[in-house]
Amino acid sequence: MSSRKPIRINAFNMNCVGHIHHGLWSHPRDRSGDYRSLAYWTELAQLLERGLFDALFLADILGAYDVFEGSIRLTAEEAVQLPVNDPFMPVSAMAAVTRHLGFGLTANLSHEPPYLLTRRLSTLDHLTEGRIGWNVVTGYLDSAARAMGQEGLARHDERYDRAEDYLALTYRLWEGSWEDDAVPRDRERRVFSDPTRIHPVAHEGPFYRCNGYHLCEPSPQRSPVIYQAGSSRRGRQFAARHAEAVFISGQDRVAAARFVAELRRDAAHVGRDPADIKVFPGISVVVDGTRRLAEAKYRDYARYASPEAGLAHFSSSLGVDLSRFALDEPIDVGHGNAIQSAATSANGSGMTRRKLLESLQLGSRYPVLVGNAADIADALESWIDEADVDGFNLTRIVTPESYADFIEFVVPELQRRGRYRTSYEEGTLRHKLFGRGDRLPIYHPAAASRR
Amino acid sequence: MSSRKPIRINAFNMNCVGHIHHGLWSHPRDRSGDYRSLAYWTELAQLLERGLFDALFLADILGAYDVFEGSIRLTAEEAVQLPVNDPFMPVSAMAAVTRHLGFGLTANLSHEPPYLLTRRLSTLDHLTEGRIGWNVVTGYLDSAARAMGQEGLARHDERYDRAEDYLALTYRLWEGSWEDDAVPRDRERRVFSDPTRIHPVAHEGPFYRCNGYHLCEPSPQRSPVIYQAGSSRRGRQFAARHAEAVFISGQDRVAAARFVAELRRDAAHVGRDPADIKVFPGISVVVDGTRRLAEAKYRDYARYASPEAGLAHFSSSLGVDLSRFALDEPIDVGHGNAIQSAATSANGSGMTRRKLLESLQLGSRYPVLVGNAADIADALESWIDEADVDGFNLTRIVTPESYADFIEFVVPELQRRGRYRTSYEEGTLRHKLFGRGDRLPIYHPAAASRR
Repeated sequence: MSSRKPIRINAFNMNCVGHIHHGLWSHPRDRSGDYRSLAYWTELAQLLERGLFDALFLADILGAYDVFEGSIRLTAEEAVQLPVNDPFMPVSAMAAVTRHLGFGLTANLSHEPPYLLTRRLSTLDHLTEGRIGWNVVTGYLDSAARAMGQEGLARHDERYDRAEDYLALTYRLWEGSWEDDAVPRDRERRVFSDPTRIHPVAHEGPFYRCNGYHLCEPSPQRSPVIYQAGSSRRGRQFAARHAEAVFISGQDRVAAARFVAELRRDAAHVGRDPADIKVFPGISVVVDGTRRLAEAKYRDYARYASPEAGLAHFSSSLGVDLSRFALDEPIDVGHGNAIQSAATSANGSGMTRRKLLESLQLGSRYPVLVGNAADIADALESWIDEADVDGFNLTRIVTPESYADFIEFVVPELQRRGRYRTSYEEGTLRHKLFGRGDRLPIYHPAAASRR
Repeated sequence: MSSRKPIRINAFNMNCVGHIHHGLWSHPRDRSGDYRSLAYWTELAQLLERGLFDALFLADILGAYDVFEGSIRLTAEEAVQLPVNDPFMPVSAMAAVTRHLGFGLTANLSHEPPYLLTRRLSTLDHLTEGRIGWNVVTGYLDSAARAMGQEGLARHDERYDRAEDYLALTYRLWEGSWEDDAVPRDRERRVFSDPTRIHPVAHEGPFYRCNGYHLCEPSPQRSPVIYQAGSSRRGRQFAARHAEAVFISGQDRVAAARFVAELRRDAAHVGRDPADIKVFPGISVVVDGTRRLAEAKYRDYARYASPEAGLAHFSSSLGVDLSRFALDEPIDVGHGNAIQSAATSANGSGMTRRKLLESLQLGSRYPVLVGNAADIADALESWIDEADVDGFNLTRIVTPESYADFIEFVVPELQRRGRYRTSYEEGTLRHKLFGRGDRLPIYHPAAASRR
């Protein structure tokens, strides 16, 4: 490995059919419709481990995209993240056929009880021997809140207040309830666990209460690797305080560079090392043996894309029914709300529905790189060097083809350039990311919960 | 298979160390301390499938046994269901290495949000191709309620009122939200799902509300096989209405026969076929090639048992600190409460702590059968024929030895007698249990939620 920063790759995915590149489920080679089968997941995990990916990152939502046209018509027809199965359930099967691949799992703290979620994540951290990350989300879908029996979505800032309280409780359960030497497993002395080294957590927060022991003995990482994806100001501050990996999307290289600089500065302000946060933009890649073949592949993919379905997805992200605008009518979705940055970056000035549809490359707002291995490697290196990011969340356009192509063409090129691992390091997901052991560093807020 | 009722066996287990037979974790051959590893679970599943077991049944609790001595001293030292990991997490790994074994999973409806639990169970039903059952529990531990941030446990009858509302909602999500032909997966016509065949569930119950679509397309069984274990009058009525499999424990053959007759009569009263409920008493077996070897094995096991740990477990079941009684002081734990039947059956007349300790055979209140294959088969056949039960929930005393011994010695004997399957039937867990297809019958209350 050269002294230049290595490039890390996560597979960006979801336990559903249409994830980012809408419409591509209809491509004859796309297998995303097989998401219900175990073999789909175990074969994917094995492929990603052959490609020496850091992790499989599984997004999630708990509601249906019902804003566009005030219905789920396009959402259903194009399988826009509906149906969507639970992201935790296939993990142990994938872990059983791999040894190094990490799993970044999305769980919505607005709806998952913290006492149960901490146990679920600890259990997976045990079963995977320390390969689990938690993508902390607060949710943004009104339809999810309604499905959960609430009147509607909580305000954005209240969701982050909740998140602070939630994490405070989970850190206490993960880090403070069982001491490191609480479980001697001593058959001779008949002491499986030492009751003097297990402590109840008495938490009385503004939103969450708990009075009990963590149900699990300490797992390899204790707190899972904390992932986060908020791009609002409050979200960025939350990430600066808690996150070990941050995903960004829908930004160009310049905007990303600015965001990353601000994030690392915020992290330093709260006493963390700016390098303690790995940043991963979402990116899509169409690659083949030659530029010409890659471009032909792109054109083939484009025949199956559904920009309208991308618009339906985007409508729910904005909370604005974009079907209400005439094709060339200027779109103003307002400012000062939770998804302001997303709106602004896609909106620009003089945005219209026609322009939006044209910008939805392969049914998505993600940047798509097209070219031969050297083209792609050049582009990724530029991103890393110019925007100070640490790697990429690689989407699937056609699955598993998009990942397989990347592994066949791009990984060897990056390895030749000394910018991609040639074998896995040993150890937990956290140790692989930071090279400093299995647990969170002492200046992370979780460490305050330790005894 | 003879015309006499076949005997069905489930492995009774839990994602923890000490489950039923407390103290046996310290036996040199016991592997229960390896519960954190994937191989422990995948090897167990393969063993049970070689033994043609119906299912692996995983119990669960969400609190610590802290009633005995007002502490977790014995609970920790003897690992009495603490630590306890999540029962859902290892399932997909086990499913990937088996084809027929079912999975009965405990989830506590007092604490799991119904919208999320329905998705989790549907996801597993998809991944396992229809091998999932849900053991519906309402919880009985004050310590669990406190850990979940509540003041304490809800009243017994209120818990069952909640359970009725909870099941009503989950049935609507599982059975009514997506029609059978809602997902054509038609690439040509670009219709993955048909929006006219997906329906929102608007539920306004006394305890639960929901306004949204089920997130999953129909799984093989839709509603998982419904397991239940309540032995109170209210619990039995709930089971009569909803359950497809009922577990009973701590009862002798006569008491079991009475309970089963009442349960089947209750089921008939609500319009179900009495044979629609399979009943499984919990049972423990020590078997070897000869009676003498089996008795020696029992004596060896007994050296490692902890009756005191069994008493700590029982104290939490009763909600009464049994350590407060002198050894020969009469114990009266009161009547008319939720666990009356458990208390009565163990209590009898003139019960003392000394007698209780003596009755905790191998650290448990479960009946232990000891003998050669013919002895065990005789006893099991008598249970089936006299108490009208359908099979057994086989505990582990030493794991996986208890299951392996049963498969080596008892299964072939039962097969010789024509009372045990010699190969699996094809199909889902429900079809294997009842031979009438994958879905609940039309006179089950869930069917009312269908379109």
